[in-house]
Order: sequence, then structure tokens, then C-alpha cells
Amino acid sequence: MIELPPLHSAPNQAELLVTHEAIHPFVHRTPVLTNRSIDQLAGARLYFKCENFQRIGAFKMRGGASAALRFSPRERERGLATHSSGNHAQAVAKAAQILGVPAYIVMPHDAPRVKVAAVEGYGAHITYCNNTPRERQAALEEVIAERGAAFIHPYDDYGVIAGQATAALELIEDTEAVLDYIVAPVGGGGLLAGTALSARYFSVQAEVIGAEPEAVDDALRSLRSGRIEENETNQTVADGLRTNLGERNFPIIRDYVKDIFTVSEAEIIAAMRMIWERMKIIVEPSCAVPLAAILRHPETFQGRHVGIILTGGNVDVDRLPF
Amino acid sequence: MIELPPLHSAPNQAELLVTHEAIHPFVHRTPVLTNRSIDQLAGARLYFKCENFQRIGAFKMRGGASAALRFSPRERERGLATHSSGNHAQAVAKAAQILGVPAYIVMPHDAPRVKVAAVEGYGAHITYCNNTPRERQAALEEVIAERGAAFIHPYDDYGVIAGQATAALELIEDTEAVLDYIVAPVGGGGLLAGTALSARYFSVQAEVIGAEPEAVDDALRSLRSGRIEENETNQTVADGLRTNLGERNFPIIRDYVKDIFTVSEAEIIAAMRMIWERMKIIVEPSCAVPLAAILRHPETFQGRHVGIILTGGNVDVDRLPF
Repeated sequence: MIELPPLHSAPNQAELLVTHEAIHPFVHRTPVLTNRSIDQLAGARLYFKCENFQRIGAFKMRGGASAALRFSPRERERGLATHSSGNHAQAVAKAAQILGVPAYIVMPHDAPRVKVAAVEGYGAHITYCNNTPRERQAALEEVIAERGAAFIHPYDDYGVIAGQATAALELIEDTEAVLDYIVAPVGGGGLLAGTALSARYFSVQAEVIGAEPEAVDDALRSLRSGRIEENETNQTVADGLRTNLGERNFPIIRDYVKDIFTVSEAEIIAAMRMIWERMKIIVEPSCAVPLAAILRHPETFQGRHVGIILTGGNVDVDRLPF
Repeated sequence: MIELPPLHSAPNQAELLVTHEAIHPFVHRTPVLTNRSIDQLAGARLYFKCENFQRIGAFKMRGGASAALRFSPRERERGLATHSSGNHAQAVAKAAQILGVPAYIVMPHDAPRVKVAAVEGYGAHITYCNNTPRERQAALEEVIAERGAAFIHPYDDYGVIAGQATAALELIEDTEAVLDYIVAPVGGGGLLAGTALSARYFSVQAEVIGAEPEAVDDALRSLRSGRIEENETNQTVADGLRTNLGERNFPIIRDYVKDIFTVSEAEIIAAMRMIWERMKIIVEPSCAVPLAAILRHPETFQGRHVGIILTGGNVDVDRLPF
């Protein structure tokens, strides 16, 4: 197993390449799919990188593995810890399971039952807390102090960013056409920052666009104001995108992302339904945000080759938005 | 474009091979997927042939194209006709569109709106009738008499059987392991008969098992009695499997299918949900019948390599059974 050194700044090209090699035992190489009927509707050639087929059902496995491997075997033998009610919790739990070390996950009492069950299924220890940032942080610090576990932040971490970058690296490698654009959703910015770095190193002509819900347009406002802006609501169906940008993520996005496009809730749901019905694959609402942005901006994407990161497929089929 | 001769008996090996070549412009080569977590639950190695990703969203495209190509250009220039409220209607409409000839589809007034829209989207002419066998037949005969169109039966047709056989042929080619079993659902028997022929010609050690809902177990009763038995209800969630066996299908199934396994409605729904949640792909209820049968019969499948035909993905996401 390849060991990775800690990263103290944005990963360079060689660091992304060695990350890609190192996480190989933890991840699938997911397929890049195309769909004629959606291409016709979009007026563009779209290449969907299907991280919904990734292990644990989301791209977060890449960042979790990349970050876990940057601790020495001695540092991580006492366990990996994080707070998350979503896919990052599963990623850290699964990475710990593969590495044969304990995982300590802080989750809110009201986390979806299916997510709790998945984390338990990977053998992690769960600490429940009330769903406020303050209580979550306190619970996490207690676990770390008590267990001596190594903390992996969901997105504000250069190791995580390097891992998430490998999705776009594979998309670029596995698409025969030269991509004009790559569109990724943006929440905390781990995926978007990683995508921007991979485009910069491996597909220089491709412009990277972030896509986010209008309701939580902190990334757009942050790019305009030049500092990290916060959301005042978390009312969006795209539950993976409610977070504000991280401190390590923002400068990379500011420097290397061309623009942020926002979309309405109705556009997200319509695009999600389009992917389900026409591609016959299950994707989370967050996945549909880039396609919604492409459909809204034909003046940008018309006739172009566009890569899209489909981020995950962990959706509760009993509670669909359509 | 390869032209195919009419078939007056079950296709032989060479006839299946030339069918596979000929339908190439009409179909996708769909992937064979595997899933570790379902393998663990089943205690077997499962290989899923994903015809839900086929053009028109179902394997029926294969049979429709194979049958259409057995009419001479002169015979088919006046159009292709069929009666169907399901995937066969879309297959004939799409085959006609590709061939540049008209399609005449008889559909019941109460056919699902999405299926009508799909058939219209391929440019077919739709004739509506009341949903009884007698009225359907009368409407079809009128269309054929008036238009001179060539009729393609949904399953009781050697050309259709040859086309459906190509799904198992590709499954066998694209699975590295030697298959011990291939399991396919059975309605009218086009797919199951074709699968049995492909196994016989291309994977002699593989046993073919048919899977059907207990509620419409006509295939099981037909194998036992030695003649075509009828269903007394159509009350199953697996809406593609309500039909009785065809006259051309039954002898092939009788001679080359090892057994028919039946499953309950609850088992079908649980298996469908398992495929959605763990594989992140959208499949129709009929697709889940083989997996339900495998989970019900560990004594047969334990430790074996098992191919499964996932037949289609045309499901109304507003009306899910779970």
C-alpha cells in the first residue's frame, strides 16, 4: 500500500498523480456514460462521470482514502474520526475498515436511518449529538481526546481535495473528446477545488464551472466579494450542497474556476428526473445541479463537449422529490 | 445493412450469430455489472446484463429489430405494425424509425401516458382500442388491411426469439467466469427461449432457469403439464410477465430450460429495491424476479457464477411499488 505525505498547500500535478495511484485499493474506476437523448435536449455532448457507482455510493470515498493515507500507520492505528451525517461519514468508516483501524463518527440524532445503518455496517463507532455546529464540534473533540483518533475534515483539507481531484482526472482520461467544460456541484468546495486542479494539470483548455442551488449561493457570492460568504438557509433539495466554502477550498476555486452558475429547486428536480428516466441510473439531487445549469445556459454550452461529475447515488427511495 | 431471411423454426447457432451482426445498428452493447454487497447477500457471484440501458430502455429492441429485418425492404416499406402497451411497442416504433418506414401501433386507451409519449416520440401512428384481446385483435387487423403493414408479434415469433437471444450471447461473451446458471424472467417466453438457445450454443455447461411471479405462474404449470397453461389473473407488480407462453416459445422452453422458479410479490419488491439501492440503477419490477428467485434458492445458487438478464428500466418514477 502506497503511503502519502501530508499536504500543507494545494496539491501539485505529481501529488495528484501519486494520490490517484495510492487510493486504488479503496475506490472503483467508475464509468463515463453518455446519453443521446439528453445530448439532444442540451444541444451539447455530455460526458457523465458516474461517482454514484463509486464505493459507498459517492465520490467522497476518494477524499476519505486520500486523507486517511496521509496519516502514518502509527497515527492512524488509534482510529479515524469525523463528523458528518452524509457520504463523508461512510467514506471515513469504509477507509478505516479497509485499513483495519477503528472509525469514530459523530452524527446528529436526526441523521437519516439509512446513512446510520451504512456507517454501522462498515463497523464504525457512532457518537450521537444534537444537530448544531457547537454540539457537533464538542462531541468530536471529546472523541478525539478520548480515543486519540485522527480527524478528517469533510472538505477543508488538502488531502481530501487531492482525492476528490481524481474523479476529474479519470473523466479527462476516459473521454475521447477534448473537453471544453467540466461542471461540478459546489458545497464545501472539496470536489470543485479538486476538479479545477485536475483540469489545470491535465486538460488545460477545459474551463471549470461550479453549479449550486440559488437557495444556497454562497460560492457565487464568495467569488464576487472575494471572501468566504455564508448561507442564511439550508432549504434546498440538494442536501449535499448546503455547506459554506472551506478556507483551503476558496482560494483554489477563486483562482481556477471560471464561473459559478446557480439553478432553481424546480430545475434541480427536473434535471434529476431527466437523469433517472433517460439514463436509468439513480443519482442524488446534488448530482442534478450541473445538468440543470447546462440546460439553463445554452449560450455557454451549445455544441460543446462538457464533462459532468455525478457525485453520488445515496438517495432514500421512499422520499423522492418527484 | 444486413438483411435477414425469415425463420420458420427455432434459430440455429449460425442464425443467432448473423442476427447479432444484423441488429448492430439498432442496439447498444449493454454492460455486464457486478455488485459485491448483493453477492454477499446471495452467497453467489452474480453478473447482471443491463438491458435497462438498452435503446428504448429494454431488451425488446433486440427482438423488434431482428423481426423487422426479416421482412424484405419491399414488404416493410408500407410499415411495421404491432399491438402492445409496453416496451415492444417502443421497439417496433424505433426499428421503423431507423429503417425509415411507418409504424402502426395498436394501444389500449388506458396505456401509461409515458409509454404513449415514447411511441409518439419515435414518430409512430397510434390506434387506440379498448383493452380486451378481441378488440385489440380487431383494431390490429384493420390497420394491417388498410395500410398493408407487416405485423411483428411481441414474442410468438422466431425472429423475435433470435433477437432476444443476443442478450444472453453478449452476457456469455462479456463474463470472464464460466457461468453455472443464467436466470431470465418469463412472460410470453421470447427472452427465456432465446436465452436457452444462446446457452445451448455458446455456454453448454450453463443451466437456464426461468423466473416468474407466483401470481402468474403459467410457465411453471405449462412445464409440468406439458401444454400451454393460462393465467387466471394479471395481478402482479411485474407488469411485463403477465402474458401466457407463445406456441413457438413453449417447445424451446420445455426442451432447454432446466426449471422455473416462482417468487412472491413481496420478494419481487424487496429485490427491486435491493438493485436500486445497492447498484444505483433503475430497473423495472420484472427485472427483479430473477434476483428474488436466486435469494429464495440458496441451495441451488450458493457459490455459483450466475448470469441475470435485467430486462428493462421503463418505470414510472411517480408510481413506485415501495
